[in-house]
Amino acid sequence: MKLTERLRREAENIWERIFNHPFVVELYKGILPIDKFKFYLIQDYNYLVTMYKCLSLLSAKADYKTARVTLELAYLDATTEIENYNKLIKKFNLTIDEVTKYEPAPTNTAYMNFLLSTCSLQPLIEGLTAILPCFWSYYEIANYHKEDLMNNPNEIYREWGSVYLGKDYIKIVEMLRDLVDRIGLDYSYERLKYLFLLGSRYEYMFWDMAYKKESWPL
Amino acid sequence: MKLTERLRREAENIWERIFNHPFVVELYKGILPIDKFKFYLIQDYNYLVTMYKCLSLLSAKADYKTARVTLELAYLDATTEIENYNKLIKKFNLTIDEVTKYEPAPTNTAYMNFLLSTCSLQPLIEGLTAILPCFWSYYEIANYHKEDLMNNPNEIYREWGSVYLGKDYIKIVEMLRDLVDRIGLDYSYERLKYLFLLGSRYEYMFWDMAYKKESWPL
Amino acid sequence: MKLTERLRREAENIWERIFNHPFVVELYKGILPIDKFKFYLIQDYNYLVTMYKCLSLLSAKADYKTARVTLELAYLDATTEIENYNKLIKKFNLTIDEVTKYEPAPTNTAYMNFLLSTCSLQPLIEGLTAILPCFWSYYEIANYHKEDLMNNPNEIYREWGSVYLGKDYIKIVEMLRDLVDRIGLDYSYERLKYLFLLGSRYEYMFWDMAYKKESWPL
Amino acid sequence: MKLTERLRREAENIWERIFNHPFVVELYKGILPIDKFKFYLIQDYNYLVTMYKCLSLLSAKADYKTARVTLELAYLDATTEIENYNKLIKKFNLTIDEVTKYEPAPTNTAYMNFLLSTCSLQPLIEGLTAILPCFWSYYEIANYHKEDLMNNPNEIYREWGSVYLGKDYIKIVEMLRDLVDRIGLDYSYERLKYLFLLGSRYEYMFWDMAYKKESWPL
Repeated sequence: MKLTERLRREAENIWERIFNHPFVVELYKGILPIDKFKFYLIQDYNYLVTMYKCLSLLSAKADYKTARVTLELAYLDATTEIENYNKLIKKFNLTIDEVTKYEPAPTNTAYMNFLLSTCSLQPLIEGLTAILPCFWSYYEIANYHKEDLMNNPNEIYREWGSVYLGKDYIKIVEMLRDLVDRIGLDYSYERLKYLFLLGSRYEYMFWDMAYKKESWPL
Repeated sequence: MKLTERLRREAENIWERIFNHPFVVELYKGILPIDKFKFYLIQDYNYLVTMYKCLSLLSAKADYKTARVTLELAYLDATTEIENYNKLIKKFNLTIDEVTKYEPAPTNTAYMNFLLSTCSLQPLIEGLTAILPCFWSYYEIANYHKEDLMNNPNEIYREWGSVYLGKDYIKIVEMLRDLVDRIGLDYSYERLKYLFLLGSRYEYMFWDMAYKKESWPL
Repeated sequence: MKLTERLRREAENIWERIFNHPFVVELYKGILPIDKFKFYLIQDYNYLVTMYKCLSLLSAKADYKTARVTLELAYLDATTEIENYNKLIKKFNLTIDEVTKYEPAPTNTAYMNFLLSTCSLQPLIEGLTAILPCFWSYYEIANYHKEDLMNNPNEIYREWGSVYLGKDYIKIVEMLRDLVDRIGLDYSYERLKYLFLLGSRYEYMFWDMAYKKESWPL
Repeated sequence: MKLTERLRREAENIWERIFNHPFVVELYKGILPIDKFKFYLIQDYNYLVTMYKCLSLLSAKADYKTARVTLELAYLDATTEIENYNKLIKKFNLTIDEVTKYEPAPTNTAYMNFLLSTCSLQPLIEGLTAILPCFWSYYEIANYHKEDLMNNPNEIYREWGSVYLGKDYIKIVEMLRDLVDRIGLDYSYERLKYLFLLGSRYEYMFWDMAYKKESWPL
């Protein structure tokens, strides 16, 4: 069994709960209250910025074959994805300048700092493993709710979700999994498992944060 | 008004709630259930390790006058403090090897990654401001509960709290405040305020985590 | 006068000596002994790898508008440029595996470590300023020797040099200059001047290293 | 044979040349022209600052047992050593403010950037191996010239050299060697050899730089 399959199996319980989280279910059914989605979107901005920074930090640690992948992802993030993001928030009458005024919620803050400190201070394989649940679970979520997605009456949600079933996105997930499978082979499995589970937990908690429109306790 | 006084004033509400958090109150009165204190201690191990790493990262960014302070603190952390920690956990029949087996709780994980990513990726002054609420609030907590401390019937708690009213500790807080006052002068106040408030929030949440013996939601 | 024009003027003496260094002159005339060019090429491999690492480190410090540029350059470096490099060394019956066995010469080692330590440990603008002389001077060298280039009897040299007069390359130089002009505005001019001159010196010394096929003194 | 003994043996030729370099020989005999020593001292300031930064970067990567050593060395560097340095330059009518105005010479620049980029971007063991030749060779140099040292007619030189035969200094070298022996066991020997030899080369080149009062070629 490949390393990423093994990691995926360890996280099965968490991923099942992700697939069935009300935010995810309602989003794919097209019945998620718009204010919850807007909250998610606003939180996602800082996450997008964090992700290209993490991928850049990993590229600086990588040989050029690995850097081809991480740099491509980082570049896509800072260009296409941020452009798409701009178009999307415009539909909610938001601009990037407004979005940046919102403070990251506790779970988002915790997740971003987990990714940043791992990608900055730990070896390449640890960072790759930490970012994997994010990329991978978005595909699996879309695949799990494929039928709901096709019948999704909310055009914005339908378009949003369809991206994660597109060829380009599937290729991204495969490239990342290949990197982890290749580079993680001789690395401490326990450590990679810890990071993969933590990333998976944060994915669940991120959806939950958005559903509850989480704020700081003080 | 000095920069650190101004920051302290902004955080007044949070600090008041720290002083009056049941964990803190019961600890200083000597009536905190021992299992809650033990939970706190176990969580504190990874925090101690994180702190000397953060201080090391800051020292690498500092001129030698500033590095004298941050390196002294880092060295004390990795020597005296970890030795004292060892003695303390022995009283609970714990060893470092056992302690390291416990997984950091969500709030502790979030706080440590906030400190690590700030000290690693941001300018010196941001890291100094992020770690300040931890050092400073421990003194103020002890000072606020000074009378309770003197009458504290629990010897372990009394000894533990007395450290933060000692001359050496007060000097540490002053040195750190001086650094922030000196280095932060021309830096974005809004950014430093954000970091100081976030550090203060995490301090409150850390006590709360220990009181509730927080665990991961999944 | 724009910041980069001012920096360029400070380095005028050094750049004049670069334009007229025998390696450069003979290369553009097509009379450079092939063993010297081969030495240059072999040294260039580690430099190429260093450059995408530096650009990645800078991207991790940059806002997304700046990161679009630095990530694009990093990605081009790790893909197109390394592919072109592969094709070029094949003409000398070399493979990447062989090239990586050569040890970086003293000047190359010094230059790469200057770029890496600056891009890793210093603020964004310092790293951008350190890498600028490399990108910029290659265009100016080609422009200075434009006529020789057109009449260059050595096909390999002619192709190699023509790249630096191409639209794509000129755009890269302009993008980098724009970044420095925009971001460096409020930064210590003395420090940027030091870095720009040091980068320029290393450019001169790199050509000289290749001409002399420099080796370690021991 | 321990790892550090093996590395030391590989560098034997280089170290022999260090022991017999005219700067070293004349310094220990007390006949080194004072302007050469002053040049060395001025260059040494930036090196001292670089060293505590490198040791700080390593401490941030280390477990607390290793960090005890690296933080102690970093703290000594930024306190005692810089104080001793201050006293020493005063004897040459120099102040730190004046010293910082001198630009680092090429070899010093190259050596410092080698240490900084290694300690910043590479794993702990690589940084420890890169800094080892500096600490270790200073002891061996003093030991090699022990007799000359005792009869050294120049009081400044005699005092300066005696430090490296002191118990405290010998203990530092032993602690560092122990770290490398312990941590380097399962690491690529070829890579550690490369770093140890490069550090040794730079040590030789540093003495040579001072003897020639090296300046930039342009």
